[in-house]
Amino acid sequence: MGTGLFWDMLAGRTPMPPAAATLGWKLREVDAEAGTIEVEFEATAAFANPAGHVQGGFLAAMLDDTMGPALAATLGPGQFAPTLDLHVQFLRVAWPGTLVGRASVVRRGKQVCHLKGELLDGSGRLVATAIATAMVQSGERMNRVRTSPVG
Amino acid sequence: MGTGLFWDMLAGRTPMPPAAATLGWKLREVDAEAGTIEVEFEATAAFANPAGHVQGGFLAAMLDDTMGPALAATLGPGQFAPTLDLHVQFLRVAWPGTLVGRASVVRRGKQVCHLKGELLDGSGRLVATAIATAMVQSGERMNRVRTSPVG
Repeated sequence: MGTGLFWDMLAGRTPMPPAAATLGWKLREVDAEAGTIEVEFEATAAFANPAGHVQGGFLAAMLDDTMGPALAATLGPGQFAPTLDLHVQFLRVAWPGTLVGRASVVRRGKQVCHLKGELLDGSGRLVATAIATAMVQSGERMNRVRTSPVG
Repeated sequence: MGTGLFWDMLAGRTPMPPAAATLGWKLREVDAEAGTIEVEFEATAAFANPAGHVQGGFLAAMLDDTMGPALAATLGPGQFAPTLDLHVQFLRVAWPGTLVGRASVVRRGKQVCHLKGELLDGSGRLVATAIATAMVQSGERMNRVRTSPVG
C-alpha cells in the first residue's frame, strides 16, 4: 500500500472524488510497481447520446479516470498529476451498463508521465483506446502552474 | 432552421439527449451555414476531482458536446455523426460553474468531418482546446459500422 491520496481513498481515509463517484468508478486491481490498473464504471442512462449509446465524451471521462488513477497509485502524499493532454479513439458504440477500464503508465518520469488506456464493454469488446500525458506536481506548484496563462 | 435531430431538439420536438442534460448543455448561438456554435455548460460539484477542479474527462465530454452539435446542426433527418477521434489539451484548471464551449466545423465532408473546439471559464479564460473527427452516417449504416469489429 502506498501513502498518497489514491491510497487514502482506497483505505476510506479520504472520500472518493465526486467525478469518480459520478462515473460509478470501482477498483478491480492495481499494481503501482507495474504501473497498471483495472477499474470498472457504471455508465448510466444519464450519459446517453440521442442514439442511446454512451456519449463519446463520457467514455473519454472514463478513460481519463482510468489512466489518472494508474499514475495516482504511484504518487506520494501531497502530489497530484493533472492530465495535460488526452487523445481518445472511439472504436465502437457502448451502451449504458458496466464498462471496464485498463490503463498503464508507459513512462513514469519525475514530472512528465505518459499513459495509455483502453475501455471494454461487458462482453470484453474494445470500445475505445486512449493515450494521455500528465504532469506530477505538488499541491502548491500545481496551482501556480495551472492557473497561470499557458504558452 | 434545419430539419435534423438537432433542430427537432431545439424546437422541443425531441427531448434533449441525457448526456447533454447531465452536462447542463444550453445553446447560446448556432450558425449551421458557417458551421459554428456557442453553448454553455453547468459544471457541478459532481464533476470534481480530488482537488475540487472539474475532472479533465468531463471537460473532454463538454468539448465533445460542443463540437458534435456544431456538426449536428448541418445534418439532415435520420443522420447521425459519431465522434471517431477526440484530442483534448488542458490549459488550465476549471472550477465548477458555468463554462462556455465554442466550436466550428473545419471541413464538412460528405462523410468525414473535421471539427475544432475550445472551452472557456466564466472569466473568458481558455480552459481547454480540442480537435475531433466525426463521420456522418444514416441510422442504419451507423449501427452496422459501429457495432462491428474495427480494424
